[in-house]
Amino acid sequence: MEGISNEACSLAGHWGLGKLIAFYDDNHISIDGDTEIAFTESVDTRFEGLGWHVIWVKNGNTGYDDIRAAIKEAKAVKDKPTLIKITTTIGFGSPNKANSYSVHGSALGAKEVEATRKNLGWPYEPFHVPEDVKNHWSRHVSEGAAFEAEWNAKFAEYEKKYPEEAAELKSIIIGELPAGWEKALPTYTAESPADATRNLSQQNLNALAKVLPGLLGGSADLASSNMTLLKMFGDFQRNTPEERNVRFGVREHGMGSICNGIALHSPGLIPYCATFFVFTDYMRAAIRISALSEAGVIYVMTHDSIGLGEDGPTHQPIEHLASFRAMPNILMLRPADGNETAGAYKVAVLNRKRPSVLALSRQKLPQLLGTSIEGVAKGGYTISDNSTGNKPDVILVGTGSELEIAAKAADELRKEGKAVRVVSLVSWELFDEQSDVYKESILPASVTARVSIEAGSTFGWEKIVGPKGKAIGIDRFGASAPAGKIYKEFGITAEAVIAAAKELC
Amino acid sequence: MEGISNEACSLAGHWGLGKLIAFYDDNHISIDGDTEIAFTESVDTRFEGLGWHVIWVKNGNTGYDDIRAAIKEAKAVKDKPTLIKITTTIGFGSPNKANSYSVHGSALGAKEVEATRKNLGWPYEPFHVPEDVKNHWSRHVSEGAAFEAEWNAKFAEYEKKYPEEAAELKSIIIGELPAGWEKALPTYTAESPADATRNLSQQNLNALAKVLPGLLGGSADLASSNMTLLKMFGDFQRNTPEERNVRFGVREHGMGSICNGIALHSPGLIPYCATFFVFTDYMRAAIRISALSEAGVIYVMTHDSIGLGEDGPTHQPIEHLASFRAMPNILMLRPADGNETAGAYKVAVLNRKRPSVLALSRQKLPQLLGTSIEGVAKGGYTISDNSTGNKPDVILVGTGSELEIAAKAADELRKEGKAVRVVSLVSWELFDEQSDVYKESILPASVTARVSIEAGSTFGWEKIVGPKGKAIGIDRFGASAPAGKIYKEFGITAEAVIAAAKELC
Repeated sequence: MEGISNEACSLAGHWGLGKLIAFYDDNHISIDGDTEIAFTESVDTRFEGLGWHVIWVKNGNTGYDDIRAAIKEAKAVKDKPTLIKITTTIGFGSPNKANSYSVHGSALGAKEVEATRKNLGWPYEPFHVPEDVKNHWSRHVSEGAAFEAEWNAKFAEYEKKYPEEAAELKSIIIGELPAGWEKALPTYTAESPADATRNLSQQNLNALAKVLPGLLGGSADLASSNMTLLKMFGDFQRNTPEERNVRFGVREHGMGSICNGIALHSPGLIPYCATFFVFTDYMRAAIRISALSEAGVIYVMTHDSIGLGEDGPTHQPIEHLASFRAMPNILMLRPADGNETAGAYKVAVLNRKRPSVLALSRQKLPQLLGTSIEGVAKGGYTISDNSTGNKPDVILVGTGSELEIAAKAADELRKEGKAVRVVSLVSWELFDEQSDVYKESILPASVTARVSIEAGSTFGWEKIVGPKGKAIGIDRFGASAPAGKIYKEFGITAEAVIAAAKELC
Repeated sequence: MEGISNEACSLAGHWGLGKLIAFYDDNHISIDGDTEIAFTESVDTRFEGLGWHVIWVKNGNTGYDDIRAAIKEAKAVKDKPTLIKITTTIGFGSPNKANSYSVHGSALGAKEVEATRKNLGWPYEPFHVPEDVKNHWSRHVSEGAAFEAEWNAKFAEYEKKYPEEAAELKSIIIGELPAGWEKALPTYTAESPADATRNLSQQNLNALAKVLPGLLGGSADLASSNMTLLKMFGDFQRNTPEERNVRFGVREHGMGSICNGIALHSPGLIPYCATFFVFTDYMRAAIRISALSEAGVIYVMTHDSIGLGEDGPTHQPIEHLASFRAMPNILMLRPADGNETAGAYKVAVLNRKRPSVLALSRQKLPQLLGTSIEGVAKGGYTISDNSTGNKPDVILVGTGSELEIAAKAADELRKEGKAVRVVSLVSWELFDEQSDVYKESILPASVTARVSIEAGSTFGWEKIVGPKGKAIGIDRFGASAPAGKIYKEFGITAEAVIAAAKELC
């Protein structure tokens, strides 16, 4: 019933995943009772529409030969995934609870277990495995050993013939990053041209794809907006499985889950996927599973604020940065320019057990003085400071596209004689993990005059600016207007930062 | 392609929505190019599987008669929704951009507009409506007036025959709540039996359904866990549209969107929908649309913390409270007991242009002294206090199931001579909206010794407890264990509150 299953199964059909065999336990019971109350579609017909081969085993309770035959048939179909619909009785064998929803969510209970054992003719004690069952299954031990030996021999042969390719495959299987891979990351100076971080992201992806054989991914039908195409590769399709640009279609939830599967398949596979940042709402369950399952998926989320402009409030994230900062085991990164985007990718690639969400701008941003790959690794760092003795008059904190605004405000304030520190807080999680000494060197407790600026919800910023500071942000939905105009209307400006700073120091 | 469309369309088929006619613009182009790259399923077959009547108009560009015939046929099919698949050329008429993705996301541009006008034989100036077109469409004015007069006459007749039913229908159409409806809300004393707020929620829903004719809703296949069944009503089904228990199936995203539609249809319709709180991740996009569209949907979200126990981290919300507190125009309510649950429902029913999310416990909670419906309306209020002069030694702040813990800790601290205030912060948004005087009366600025306790992310709590206070919460994923054990393991205990309070005062 879940929409995600249709998204994923539609793609499986499109890709012709002939090795995929899905068993559908057609028992007609869900938690609320008979599926008749909410689910009367023809699953068979739907899956045929999705391009699957469908087999129906009518007696799934005891029709062992039919099940075997279905599996054999499914294996023989090489160009389509197969759905084996097996009609069963839930709780089969339980004399009083079979075919009822009470079997779905709770245990049978001792009495009914006893009755079920009797009914099924199972005379053994709990957890006893009869000898003939054990023997029957034990044959798989030697079988498996033989399969493994065969594979190892084949791989050894392959390694001899194709040492380079074998090394690459091995690195993907064991998850060892190639030595010096991070040298591929592009670097920028303040003189490098202004650019949107979504474009800088594409430079990083393309640079990294050359050195990371396991990097692959794509977008949910927004590749040309998210800037996620790897230019040296073609599309991953049914007949071109060696390519690395995955076309997910408008299927965000399925996309995230597929990337989880890729990440968890082999530690050296590094999947990335992309959509507009606001559409993380469509795939949040998959992103949470990345975090919970320690799947190091890279989420390339562009159009990360009201700065996207005319598409308006349906497309403008507000609460999304806060919502990911609150999620455990995930890195929310909002780089401000080229060096920070490279830094964010370095962090994302290194964190194979923690997914990363990169929030990237649609609009052009200047390359800032003082940003660095090393700074990003610490989550928060000073990009400019004219104070001495760790005692600035005021600290301005920005992230992403608003770091530029903080830097501009600092320039003005300094002209008026203020000692101003500008801090980039690109990743709260990474900053939290730094030593107290480091954190104090960036945000000294004695300096309570702090102004933050971020084009998103101010929720959570009290932690950074404290009760005496001021958080500039947006606590309402966005609006449709060109980026420049909307920033001004919403007060996300250097003037607002300057005014707030002057009130505080 | 989006999973939600399959969820909603599966339900439309199940309910046999014969009045629903969907036009599917089969133009084979999406933002990333030809749909062939990601979408090759048979939409027709899928929709037939979903129980829809499917019509294919092969020439949607100029086949006007075929389109008319299809609509006529669709209207004649009364027991199924109809999908009219119309194969078209995107940008039809544009000589250079027709049938390409460049028409999807950007304007044609002046030159191509000119060429298209020429190609289509459209000689008029921009925004000019030729007289014959105007006349052709203007006939709908008198037609519409006649339809309206007919409806009004019919309603007047109905009103005469069935004054009570007509008044009810009218109240739903205009959205006027029946006078004194709030008297139906159940109240509790500290002697009322302990109960889970999910059960108390069901008492409220059943009490309110008697007085609110527009209240209807259900759960995504968790009705018996979310406790959302209205006992005096049957199931809303194909042949029982007068009933009010909606069976959404395991389709959270579709459920939320359907409730948005119900809420926006008539101001007097008050839809509620339910699942486990963690599964708001599956429907977050729909919930955000509620907030953005000012649709007063009531989200009944049970199993709201690690307190749900054995189902473990996949089912245990952590960051969810914070994620909704950061969302604009939505009320996140976490009631602690019976009176607060009634208060939350009062707020939710009154807020017809702001959705409410009710986080409710699976586990039993005692009825607390000092909680009230009126208190909930203010978002935050004092439930007990042995201090004088608005100067407690320490303020303990709790929400939901942890308010009990705060109250217990206060009892202990008071035994040791401390002046302790206990504050229930049931809704941050409502509290934020109170006057500064009121807020100061609850959380006086001079009292920096504050301890909060909530079985969820501490993200955002700095705002409440300040830099000198302590937020007790959970900033990691949960674990599978009985509620009592897991609370202890995670340090969500009265002992932890007492220890923190003693450090501060």
